[in-house]
Amino acid sequence: MLKTADHLYLQVADNIEQLIEKEVMKIGEKLPSVRMLSRQQGISMTTAFQAYYHLEAKGLIESRPKSGYYIRFNTRRMPPMPDTCQPVKKASEATVNDMVMEVFNHMNREDILKFSVATPPVQILPAAKMSKAVIHAMRQLHAGGIGYEPLQGNELLRGQIARIALSWGSTFTADDVITTSGCMDALTLCLAATTQPGDTIAVESPAYYGALQLAESLNLKVLEVPTHPVTGVDLDYLDKAIPRHKIRACLFSTNFNNPMGACVPDKNKKELVSIIVKHDIALIEDDIYGDLYFGKERPANCKTFDKHGHVLLCNSFSKTLAPGYRVGWTMPGKYKEKVLLLKQNHSIACSSLPQAAVGHFLEIGRYEHHLRNLRKIMHTQCLRYSQAISEYFPDTSRISRPQGGCVLWIELEDHVNTFELFQQALKHKISICPGRIFSLQNRYNNCFRLSFGNPWSKSIDEGLKTLGKLIRKIS
Amino acid sequence: MLKTADHLYLQVADNIEQLIEKEVMKIGEKLPSVRMLSRQQGISMTTAFQAYYHLEAKGLIESRPKSGYYIRFNTRRMPPMPDTCQPVKKASEATVNDMVMEVFNHMNREDILKFSVATPPVQILPAAKMSKAVIHAMRQLHAGGIGYEPLQGNELLRGQIARIALSWGSTFTADDVITTSGCMDALTLCLAATTQPGDTIAVESPAYYGALQLAESLNLKVLEVPTHPVTGVDLDYLDKAIPRHKIRACLFSTNFNNPMGACVPDKNKKELVSIIVKHDIALIEDDIYGDLYFGKERPANCKTFDKHGHVLLCNSFSKTLAPGYRVGWTMPGKYKEKVLLLKQNHSIACSSLPQAAVGHFLEIGRYEHHLRNLRKIMHTQCLRYSQAISEYFPDTSRISRPQGGCVLWIELEDHVNTFELFQQALKHKISICPGRIFSLQNRYNNCFRLSFGNPWSKSIDEGLKTLGKLIRKIS
Repeated sequence: MLKTADHLYLQVADNIEQLIEKEVMKIGEKLPSVRMLSRQQGISMTTAFQAYYHLEAKGLIESRPKSGYYIRFNTRRMPPMPDTCQPVKKASEATVNDMVMEVFNHMNREDILKFSVATPPVQILPAAKMSKAVIHAMRQLHAGGIGYEPLQGNELLRGQIARIALSWGSTFTADDVITTSGCMDALTLCLAATTQPGDTIAVESPAYYGALQLAESLNLKVLEVPTHPVTGVDLDYLDKAIPRHKIRACLFSTNFNNPMGACVPDKNKKELVSIIVKHDIALIEDDIYGDLYFGKERPANCKTFDKHGHVLLCNSFSKTLAPGYRVGWTMPGKYKEKVLLLKQNHSIACSSLPQAAVGHFLEIGRYEHHLRNLRKIMHTQCLRYSQAISEYFPDTSRISRPQGGCVLWIELEDHVNTFELFQQALKHKISICPGRIFSLQNRYNNCFRLSFGNPWSKSIDEGLKTLGKLIRKIS
Repeated sequence: MLKTADHLYLQVADNIEQLIEKEVMKIGEKLPSVRMLSRQQGISMTTAFQAYYHLEAKGLIESRPKSGYYIRFNTRRMPPMPDTCQPVKKASEATVNDMVMEVFNHMNREDILKFSVATPPVQILPAAKMSKAVIHAMRQLHAGGIGYEPLQGNELLRGQIARIALSWGSTFTADDVITTSGCMDALTLCLAATTQPGDTIAVESPAYYGALQLAESLNLKVLEVPTHPVTGVDLDYLDKAIPRHKIRACLFSTNFNNPMGACVPDKNKKELVSIIVKHDIALIEDDIYGDLYFGKERPANCKTFDKHGHVLLCNSFSKTLAPGYRVGWTMPGKYKEKVLLLKQNHSIACSSLPQAAVGHFLEIGRYEHHLRNLRKIMHTQCLRYSQAISEYFPDTSRISRPQGGCVLWIELEDHVNTFELFQQALKHKISICPGRIFSLQNRYNNCFRLSFGNPWSKSIDEGLKTLGKLIRKIS
């Protein structure tokens, strides 16, 4: 939740942003001076300055020395958005494993500009604070945490997760939560708990490649559901597809999905839950980007509207605190016993220290403060990257408008092959995620995913310029 | 490896132990004085004293004040060993999940005497040293370890594991090792990499219940192979069963298996590997108790004899350093790429800090020293527990003779139901593992597993006495 002081400068900045977007104020136009703004709005000089500073950081306005602030960028001038995709109406059994392995082969090379990684980089995550939390955890835990933690997971952490759930208006308790080794482990357990080999599941299209690979490893067939870049899965389509394809579970990322950035509106979330309940199937809801919203409030999740336990909510702290700690969790609703049993069968327990450390970090109340900063950084980077892309990439490019998360989805002309772009870019020590890995249907060959996690810098700017040139070269 | 000084007193103690066992020296007989022993054997007084001290700790001799050392216990006077079991010749699909859940329900209750847990308790593991290693790891790792570690696992740790392999005479490199979240995770990945749902695997009988549960969760059928309490699986039986039951993989614990304690002789290990190679199937070798040997040398594992990569060796540091850290590993031979892919699909990476901490602990060379102490403690406890059981339990009881690990397998008269014993014992705040959970065939109802991990104490002694009384009561 934002404090009042924050609210004020953000409100002012927001108003100006809307004026820019509606082209009431045009590119190149001079803005009122800080003093003038303060008088006009009845706010302090500091607040007025903060508002301009915020807009400048977002790349929307610029200050010219000894002259004042000018409008620099209008998000409406951005390239158009991608369309809703039309995947084949058939469950698939193809594989993207080889291509994913090739794309992430260079993960540990330091010399590569990684536009391919959908996680904020460690330099904007609280490394020193997490180390302190680990030391605290070692002091608190019996025998320094070398013993097994309870099967369901660290109790402090589960309690804190229940408190977080309060902030999206839900009343869950520690007993509703099972901790996991990251979100991927949560998705694995939940998918295994709700399906049998040979079953069909529904995913978004384009879908997170990890979900496609997971389904394959569990011997599941996959139906890709048309997905709007802003509002998410097509619910009418889904409603009809569930009985037709005997869908046993849906695996959707409802907030700022990867790679498109869609955020399912509350109304649609409610409707999605009622469809799931009507057909009596499971919804595995991946909410891993939910805390990285750019707007004023955290979007809800389907779990909030789930009265009968059909939703298995999955999340982690990998996008916000420490990806390497592998601290994730699930609220598996009525599938709790099955998920617990699978957790016992496959890993006995999570690693005790990282779980306790995250629990402690949440307990001392630093999480919301940290998130507020992280969200500002990510929003600013999103706009900066988008602006550069609209400048450097061909005019025919389309680009997503995520309101959270950390990736952009870029659609090029039909004939451009982004796997070739990936290979060419790698020669320039730049990595991207070619669109092909986000579907089992040999689709999205002209799209790619670009992460805006890395803080803006000269080399990022150069990298995007190079990508633009390469796209023109192979077009 | 033992140092020479160690060797000497252990050699002397060992010789005396053999004389006791062969009844050359009988219970109640007086041993030579320390001075006399020193003169006879041409050893120092200190070494002579150490030898007696060692035998006393094992419960084999006792010192009587102002009189000297007397023989107290003869392991040959112990109850007989259990027989090789004769499981049904048919792959099973039953489940032991409910009973396992019931047995381990009380895991986190402090007030229970846990003879049910097959792990050395934290008080004999190096908690403080591990905490130091974690702090060191946080200093060494980039950004304190909050970033993802490489998919294959921490490089330092993998290198150190390769060094350990040298000590069993194998030449593996860090590149042959994949780290996992404990041994159970390694078994899960390896079993998933070598089978398809519906396949049949072979396990020992009795088998570790976790292996049975894992097989069920992966939709595998299970053939239980007759297993000798000393030499392990019946290889002739296995050789015929593989083609007959279309076995796709074997999951065996070759050293001090759980629950029987069998240690497959080297000759049989070689033969087992050749059977596996002949039928071109996989052997998942669980060597988790291999480091807890009581003899002079670590037993080999099948991996040592594996020239073609058919063996997937799995292990962890959960029985020797820190169960709660969940640091395990596998050397999956020719299945490496498949296992890596599954690791990526199911969890992306392990938790970075615990892996780096264990790597550091191994690097500074404290592991072998720690193990030497731990093994002495466990061996002594094994003998103490066995002695008490032979004293307190009915004469008709049979008891295993493990040469390593941390559990005893006890067979009672046919009509005694150990699940009832489990329930009765729980009322006295004592927990055991009823034999029924070690098979899918409704067998071993008259057996149970008893861990000797907890250091000998008055309450352990009382606990075993109570168990003996309860057995008589329900017999």
